[in-house]
Amino acid sequence: MSFATIDSATKQSAGTAITAEEIAEGLHEGHTASPDVARYALTLGDDALILAQRLGWWISRAPEMEEDIALGNIALDLLGHARFLLTYAGSADGRTEDDLAYFRTEEEFRSCRLVEQPNGDFAHTIARQLLFSQYAYLLYRELAGSADSVLGAIADKALKEVAYHRDHATQWTLRLGDGTEESHRRMQEAIEHVWPYLEELFTDEDLHDRLEGIAVRPSSLRAEFDAHVADVLAAATLEVPQVPQAMAYGGVRSGAASEHRGFILAEMQSLAVRHPGATW
Amino acid sequence: MSFATIDSATKQSAGTAITAEEIAEGLHEGHTASPDVARYALTLGDDALILAQRLGWWISRAPEMEEDIALGNIALDLLGHARFLLTYAGSADGRTEDDLAYFRTEEEFRSCRLVEQPNGDFAHTIARQLLFSQYAYLLYRELAGSADSVLGAIADKALKEVAYHRDHATQWTLRLGDGTEESHRRMQEAIEHVWPYLEELFTDEDLHDRLEGIAVRPSSLRAEFDAHVADVLAAATLEVPQVPQAMAYGGVRSGAASEHRGFILAEMQSLAVRHPGATW
Repeated sequence: MSFATIDSATKQSAGTAITAEEIAEGLHEGHTASPDVARYALTLGDDALILAQRLGWWISRAPEMEEDIALGNIALDLLGHARFLLTYAGSADGRTEDDLAYFRTEEEFRSCRLVEQPNGDFAHTIARQLLFSQYAYLLYRELAGSADSVLGAIADKALKEVAYHRDHATQWTLRLGDGTEESHRRMQEAIEHVWPYLEELFTDEDLHDRLEGIAVRPSSLRAEFDAHVADVLAAATLEVPQVPQAMAYGGVRSGAASEHRGFILAEMQSLAVRHPGATW
Repeated sequence: MSFATIDSATKQSAGTAITAEEIAEGLHEGHTASPDVARYALTLGDDALILAQRLGWWISRAPEMEEDIALGNIALDLLGHARFLLTYAGSADGRTEDDLAYFRTEEEFRSCRLVEQPNGDFAHTIARQLLFSQYAYLLYRELAGSADSVLGAIADKALKEVAYHRDHATQWTLRLGDGTEESHRRMQEAIEHVWPYLEELFTDEDLHDRLEGIAVRPSSLRAEFDAHVADVLAAATLEVPQVPQAMAYGGVRSGAASEHRGFILAEMQSLAVRHPGATW
């Protein structure tokens, strides 16, 4: 990697065809989100929001200054996706992105447990990035053709950035997996640590049936995901984990949070909740 | 402020005339930094590095999602400045930016105590931003004409971004100072808290004498700084503090760190020190 990556992550969005104001005001094709579309948008937006919070921690703590900036840029990209998705979700009932980010309870969040996993050492963060960004890349590529034009426009914008996130994670996986004996051991251990949380990403819900042609059916992405990740792991001299999936209790993405979600939200929401609007 | 600020902070640097590789390889006008120039560049670079670390904390913790992104972008801008300045400083004796960021002791850092001050509440962060960004704006504007072409090119690039940082801090100072009774009280208290650390920024050293025409003499910036900050505070219905300066013991910027520096560096350096290159 080179210094050229300093600006890349947040610089690819100039050509976006949609603005957040348009979403908030229902100006894009004159519509606001239905309750089902809002629920779906929250799923995607919460994943991005939580992962951004996790990655932001690395600013100034990464192993290289270049990496500080790369992970910081990825965090900001994801915050951007979250803002679009939460703004659109909020259009269903007149709530703002900030209402949804700062004033929902732990049970109301729809994030997957993969993004809620702790940063761990650098290898754990990269393993989580590898799996999430590949999933997100396939998801947004498909969603760009959604019958819902707002979701399609958001996905089209996010896709360009997530493609960079995927490349970034892939390069680090190769570097660590095919590096020293110690880096290989840590990367293999990290992949095995996050692997149990994959199933949740690809499990269909009734919601997807009701949003046929609008939402992406998660199970439809699995085969290409598995093939791509297997290729990357093989090139990195890593093995595809043979570990059981950690199935969600009480249903998929329905409040079955990891034990980490409460702490993440406590940090994220404390200022806004104590001082709404920070105008005191 | 509007959604347009999402991308603004890191998007203004496309026209930069210098690259970090050129600095590292001494390609720019064929020279590397002298020991004095390196020491000066470290002063500026350390300020940017420490402040970036402080601001990165706000990602996902700011009072608005828009503000998460704004402060995150400012942190990344500052990390970019630090990388250029540390890379140039390292050219004096063959060290890299990472050597300088991760493998110097607390006593070797040259950062000012203003940037080492804790984030506090949001008003404290904004007060610190208001003073530092106004100082940095005047400094880089002058340094852009340095007889040292590398310092000049770095300053020219940083100036565009710091101008945005100054606008951002000014807008928040006006919003909080001229907001509610509570926000006014907090903003006034915050300005008074950071005010004692100003003197250090504007104190000349022997180093500046030796670098006549190359470095900016800090005392030369003070009058315009005072006038501008007084204007902003007046517009925000805030008062210019009448509080004593906290003079540095043992000389200016010569290891007379605030009590916070050790903790900041412990966080920043722990991964790199334990795992150099993170290749284990």
